[in-house]
Amino acid sequence: MKRHAKRDYPLMDIRRHLETGPIVLVSSAWRGKTNIMTMGWHMMLQFTPALFGGYIWTGNHSYEMIRQSRQCVINVPTVDLIDTIVAIGNSSGSEIDKFKEFDLSAGQAERVKAPLIDECYASFECELADDTLVPDKGLFIWQVVKAHVAPSPKNPKTVHYRGDGEFMVAGPSLSRRGSFKPEML
Amino acid sequence: MKRHAKRDYPLMDIRRHLETGPIVLVSSAWRGKTNIMTMGWHMMLQFTPALFGGYIWTGNHSYEMIRQSRQCVINVPTVDLIDTIVAIGNSSGSEIDKFKEFDLSAGQAERVKAPLIDECYASFECELADDTLVPDKGLFIWQVVKAHVAPSPKNPKTVHYRGDGEFMVAGPSLSRRGSFKPEML
Repeated sequence: MKRHAKRDYPLMDIRRHLETGPIVLVSSAWRGKTNIMTMGWHMMLQFTPALFGGYIWTGNHSYEMIRQSRQCVINVPTVDLIDTIVAIGNSSGSEIDKFKEFDLSAGQAERVKAPLIDECYASFECELADDTLVPDKGLFIWQVVKAHVAPSPKNPKTVHYRGDGEFMVAGPSLSRRGSFKPEML
Repeated sequence: MKRHAKRDYPLMDIRRHLETGPIVLVSSAWRGKTNIMTMGWHMMLQFTPALFGGYIWTGNHSYEMIRQSRQCVINVPTVDLIDTIVAIGNSSGSEIDKFKEFDLSAGQAERVKAPLIDECYASFECELADDTLVPDKGLFIWQVVKAHVAPSPKNPKTVHYRGDGEFMVAGPSLSRRGSFKPEML
């Protein structure tokens, strides 16, 4: 599978890759093991520092790894990885090594121990910023501390989950830049 | 503009319209006035009861209306409303009546005082369920108490914000239902 050569990317602009609501792959590391989970329930929360919220079910093998390590990497895949995305979501890290099983390449992160996924076009290194609602709602609030994004594709064909095994693939881009007040851009 | 005839919709299934990450229009009512704001930072949080989180900036005219009334309606527009969406996001309810200004029809909700927007194909009536992170993060956690969705279009062309005045329009659907474990559907 294609690996993306990513570059440093401004933290201020990460919304460009997360606000559209794509399925992301969350990688983690804890006590010498790594894991990957799919995540569809997430949101931007702040520009600076860059905050991002994500829901993790307690039943996920990644839950304790991420809660204990207080770190993860949010990786954004495109539609060419659809079968890998589905396979990751339908298997458990308690039984398999997902990097090995799904032939994914673990890249070295700069600020966290969790690995980047080289086959994803964007990877965001995260440290846990607020765990207030982790016990009651499963809501982890992350500070993105380092961003890596491949310069192309410019408008990546991300996948967005509709439930029931169906995905929406990112379609055409539409600019209305001229209709925005400058302070709203 | 086209009004959608919506029907009752199972609360359990609202993720089908929200998890993909569309721009939504949030309508509110407080002390005899109504307002509408655009929202792109939001996420599903729970199936039953149906919980949904959304970020509202304190600078929005809707902020106090929603914080005080503890209610809102989350309406999902499609790409035919793109110019209305942009105009709503670039104007303030402190200066104009957005329903009147943008020729939108306020429908009667069942469980809340905030109006439905008839031109949106889906509307979700919400009551504030958790305000823990409202002061610090602007994060409102809503319980969706009533859902209305038009039976068509089946795969609506929602719009997803990329920042910088650019939108991604929902593209084709892709099913991988056959690759899911039954308990994961």
